[in-house]
Amino acid sequence: MPETLLCPRNLAFELYEVLDAEGLTQRERFADHSRETFDAAIDTARSIAENLFAPHNRKADENEPIYKDGEAVLIPEVKPAVDAFIEAGFHNASRSFDDGGMQLPNLLSRACFAHFQSANIGTSSYPMLTMGASHLIEVFGSDEQKQRFLQPMLEGRFFGTMALTEPHAGSSLSDLRTRAEPAGDGTYRLKGNKIFISGGDHPLSENIVHMVLAKLPDAPPGVKGISLFIVPKFLVNDDGSLGKRNDVILAGLFHKMGWRGTTSTALNFGDNGDCVGYLVGEPHKGLSYMFQMMNDARIGVGMGAIMLGYAGYLYSLNYARERPQGRLPDGKNPASAQVPIIQHTDIKRMLLTQKAYVEGAFDLGLYAARLVDEQHTAPNEDDRKNAHELLDLLTPIVKSWPSEFCLKANEMAIQILGGHGYTREYPVEQYYRDNRLNPIHEGTHGIQSLDLLARKLSQNGGAGLRQLLGLIQNTCKRAGEFSSLDALRQPLEQLLARLTEVTQALLGDLTAGKINQALANSALYLKVFGHTVIGWRWLEQAIRAEQGLAKGNAADVDFYRGKLQAARYFLTWEVPSCHHELDLLSGRDDTCLTMQDVWF
Amino acid sequence: MPETLLCPRNLAFELYEVLDAEGLTQRERFADHSRETFDAAIDTARSIAENLFAPHNRKADENEPIYKDGEAVLIPEVKPAVDAFIEAGFHNASRSFDDGGMQLPNLLSRACFAHFQSANIGTSSYPMLTMGASHLIEVFGSDEQKQRFLQPMLEGRFFGTMALTEPHAGSSLSDLRTRAEPAGDGTYRLKGNKIFISGGDHPLSENIVHMVLAKLPDAPPGVKGISLFIVPKFLVNDDGSLGKRNDVILAGLFHKMGWRGTTSTALNFGDNGDCVGYLVGEPHKGLSYMFQMMNDARIGVGMGAIMLGYAGYLYSLNYARERPQGRLPDGKNPASAQVPIIQHTDIKRMLLTQKAYVEGAFDLGLYAARLVDEQHTAPNEDDRKNAHELLDLLTPIVKSWPSEFCLKANEMAIQILGGHGYTREYPVEQYYRDNRLNPIHEGTHGIQSLDLLARKLSQNGGAGLRQLLGLIQNTCKRAGEFSSLDALRQPLEQLLARLTEVTQALLGDLTAGKINQALANSALYLKVFGHTVIGWRWLEQAIRAEQGLAKGNAADVDFYRGKLQAARYFLTWEVPSCHHELDLLSGRDDTCLTMQDVWF
Repeated sequence: MPETLLCPRNLAFELYEVLDAEGLTQRERFADHSRETFDAAIDTARSIAENLFAPHNRKADENEPIYKDGEAVLIPEVKPAVDAFIEAGFHNASRSFDDGGMQLPNLLSRACFAHFQSANIGTSSYPMLTMGASHLIEVFGSDEQKQRFLQPMLEGRFFGTMALTEPHAGSSLSDLRTRAEPAGDGTYRLKGNKIFISGGDHPLSENIVHMVLAKLPDAPPGVKGISLFIVPKFLVNDDGSLGKRNDVILAGLFHKMGWRGTTSTALNFGDNGDCVGYLVGEPHKGLSYMFQMMNDARIGVGMGAIMLGYAGYLYSLNYARERPQGRLPDGKNPASAQVPIIQHTDIKRMLLTQKAYVEGAFDLGLYAARLVDEQHTAPNEDDRKNAHELLDLLTPIVKSWPSEFCLKANEMAIQILGGHGYTREYPVEQYYRDNRLNPIHEGTHGIQSLDLLARKLSQNGGAGLRQLLGLIQNTCKRAGEFSSLDALRQPLEQLLARLTEVTQALLGDLTAGKINQALANSALYLKVFGHTVIGWRWLEQAIRAEQGLAKGNAADVDFYRGKLQAARYFLTWEVPSCHHELDLLSGRDDTCLTMQDVWF
Repeated sequence: MPETLLCPRNLAFELYEVLDAEGLTQRERFADHSRETFDAAIDTARSIAENLFAPHNRKADENEPIYKDGEAVLIPEVKPAVDAFIEAGFHNASRSFDDGGMQLPNLLSRACFAHFQSANIGTSSYPMLTMGASHLIEVFGSDEQKQRFLQPMLEGRFFGTMALTEPHAGSSLSDLRTRAEPAGDGTYRLKGNKIFISGGDHPLSENIVHMVLAKLPDAPPGVKGISLFIVPKFLVNDDGSLGKRNDVILAGLFHKMGWRGTTSTALNFGDNGDCVGYLVGEPHKGLSYMFQMMNDARIGVGMGAIMLGYAGYLYSLNYARERPQGRLPDGKNPASAQVPIIQHTDIKRMLLTQKAYVEGAFDLGLYAARLVDEQHTAPNEDDRKNAHELLDLLTPIVKSWPSEFCLKANEMAIQILGGHGYTREYPVEQYYRDNRLNPIHEGTHGIQSLDLLARKLSQNGGAGLRQLLGLIQNTCKRAGEFSSLDALRQPLEQLLARLTEVTQALLGDLTAGKINQALANSALYLKVFGHTVIGWRWLEQAIRAEQGLAKGNAADVDFYRGKLQAARYFLTWEVPSCHHELDLLSGRDDTCLTMQDVWF
């Protein structure tokens, strides 16, 4: 049977040949683990994903949640899937054994979760949101909050959400209007409306814990006046039993183009003046708390985009192998048999492009997950700090690059299936619709580009950037030992040199106060930076492939040849295309900046 | 009220400033017409499109056709819309007054029809398919066939389809299996299955006339053995009344990602051995007849893609003007009011890109329509021949370029609306889903690229290509008179020079029999060729804008400035990006060609 979720050989390559997952078992925290326990966790994830998540992916799309009597109703297949996920412990995969977790490295936890995202992005979102919310309480909540809310989340009885967006503000969090008044007893009363709250209502758990951004009466204006609150759907009594229904009302559901299995809700807080909330951490620090979780959420979005791309790639690959149609240009004899379409060069182009996008992004996503492990468990404090800074810098790329290019991969998967790909009888059109959300949520593409250029590049005095440049140069140097990789290495070196130059110039403009000009073409910068990073990751994969080939294992030859060809595609077809964007950036092109509303 | 279908000022610019529609009224065929009659036809089209087509666009998407008792059931709003279209005569817009037509130039007929495509691509498809089918009978049918089938189509009582695709063959028409046996009485009995037949069943007309490709018993193998048949849903008696139901069975409906208002059907011909068909023209010439109609159908697809792009562009433009959010990078004071998002440079970038794609393609689509007029009514035979050859060459671009780039425009329209754009409460996500069909039907992107490179370039000894190169050079020369256009002209000249060189080299390879190698990167060639053509059309528009500005009409200044900025965007942001693709083409890069199935 062909693979449908991801390629296990590729996952093993990433874990054990590129990212040294086994090295992590040398660390105290992961000492009880081994390649065997890692693989066992992956097998379990894969089995649940294939057997309980994938089978209702289409059904959930065709039967989106329904609003009924103030509640969201889902198809019945979602709960058993999520229950099995929790039963197997994947919502606590990286938590300590003491807390009932598997104490897996983040790298492995991400790798396991990738299977669920590939199988059913809609259903996998409920636990993902819960993991994000529980993480917030874990890090910033009081002991009492942990006891009352976190513990049932760890047990899988309570689920969570992140409630940021408001109708009039969207990405502009400084304009939030939701208010929180102290009630005098240490609790607060919230009033406001939130939209696009994923998982904001569902029948999957006993309770839903909303992590809500709101403003206190004495809040300073802007982003420095935002506080974070726990607002449960049901109040929780001291003994842990559920109390009365809180004044959080499901005002309605959004009907989306894709990702339909996940409820997207409008929530009204305090319509009846009695919405109880609990302040998390200190007043006015809510946004900084959220941001500390953001890296994780954004890696999650990036991985979701990658896995949708991966699922489409594998489906179209298998289709292209089985579907006979037409003949090669130099063999048009109509009496000859039709060839499988994978033999047509243009089909190979679309498969190779998908492979380059999907496997390039997959490598980056897991690399970022590995950085989380470095950040928390590297023996040396400098290494921990470095990992943190590098991850901070890379986060906008991990989030945005797959959202753009793995969506493009999905577009190609449809094209390979032709008319069939456009019908709902095949899964690729759903992947495409699902994936279109990723450039929007958790910070749009535009927001990511500004985050990268205006904030991340110069954070910590540019330490993350220097580190990244050093790492890429190091990869190029090691690639230099393989003359077979010269044609792949050189385009990356050329791009890196120019990117470095342009980056310095733009940062100089920012320092000089030419802010609007420097940021005008941030979208181009994001693309070039992203291509540089993915190009780097492909060169790194190419080195490992050469090393693998040198071992001479016959069963692996085709796999490594494929890696080298995809690396060649990305480094010679995609990477050099960025010079034109660099020309525009280096010339401070102002075509878009000077465009006027009245001219449209 | 903001415009929703297209920009009337831009249409007037195209018709009267770029494409000299008034000049056509000097010709005998159009002598009864004037700018006034042209504008009156456009106003009527616009009114029907706005009042009867647009209002059910979403409803038709949400309530796709249902299969019931062997028939396709549509929502009730479709028929009154189509009836009004026919009542106003738009299905015969370019036919002679004598045949009950409006005797409009093809240019005007296309311009009128564009309104319906923008308002509701699904509903507009029924008359479009009928126009294609009736045109086939008109040109190749016998007098009796015209009397029996064409006449009721002209009267709007019969509708039509084009039935080409079969389940096992898709784009590979040489592998068709549908058979037609002579019945001995001059008629034929057909047997076979067709899929993806748009408009294959519906309750909009008294009868449906299927134009079916099938093979006669003595057919030579391959594409030279295909014949064309009329296969009506109901037989037609000598007196024109409907006879018995023909043996064409609606086997089922396809459920598509978008374009849901149009039935996409599986039709079984001759399941009961009694499917009556009538041979059109001579045996074995069916495909050549189809191909003579193909230009028209492919312009139709291109225009559909453009109009979906146009509708999304206008919607997102209006949204960006009305939606306040955030502040400019250099004005972050949270106490200040939020700005309309059109003030953000990255939003301007996405609007300007949409404008450049949509208005560039719109110009090309109407230019192609104008060539149809030249082909039929130019006073000089050489001009008619030239127009035919140029149109033949440009057709793959007219079909494919908008299908790719106006889809990209739709993707940006969603992005501008953010989370809202992803919901079905706004129309942009539907445009995106609808438009995704266009790179597939009427010849996929891959097919178009091979058609261009392997066939159209060298057709008629390369006359079309020489003509195009001459026209582009002429435009560059005229642009040279405006020093303000230097920066726009030069990138096009540079691209044209290199494209010419690469084209000669690839044609040389084809002549030398290196067919697979020469065609390997046809997708890249298609893109560069398309960008050259659209760049040319933008430079032409820029010249007209400069000429318009020189007239000094204050009311037009903003319009012309917008044209110049969009031209600048396309010629300086997009056109130079093609050099990298030309590098790959000129180096005969074989990355995709040498990729192996087992390496994936």
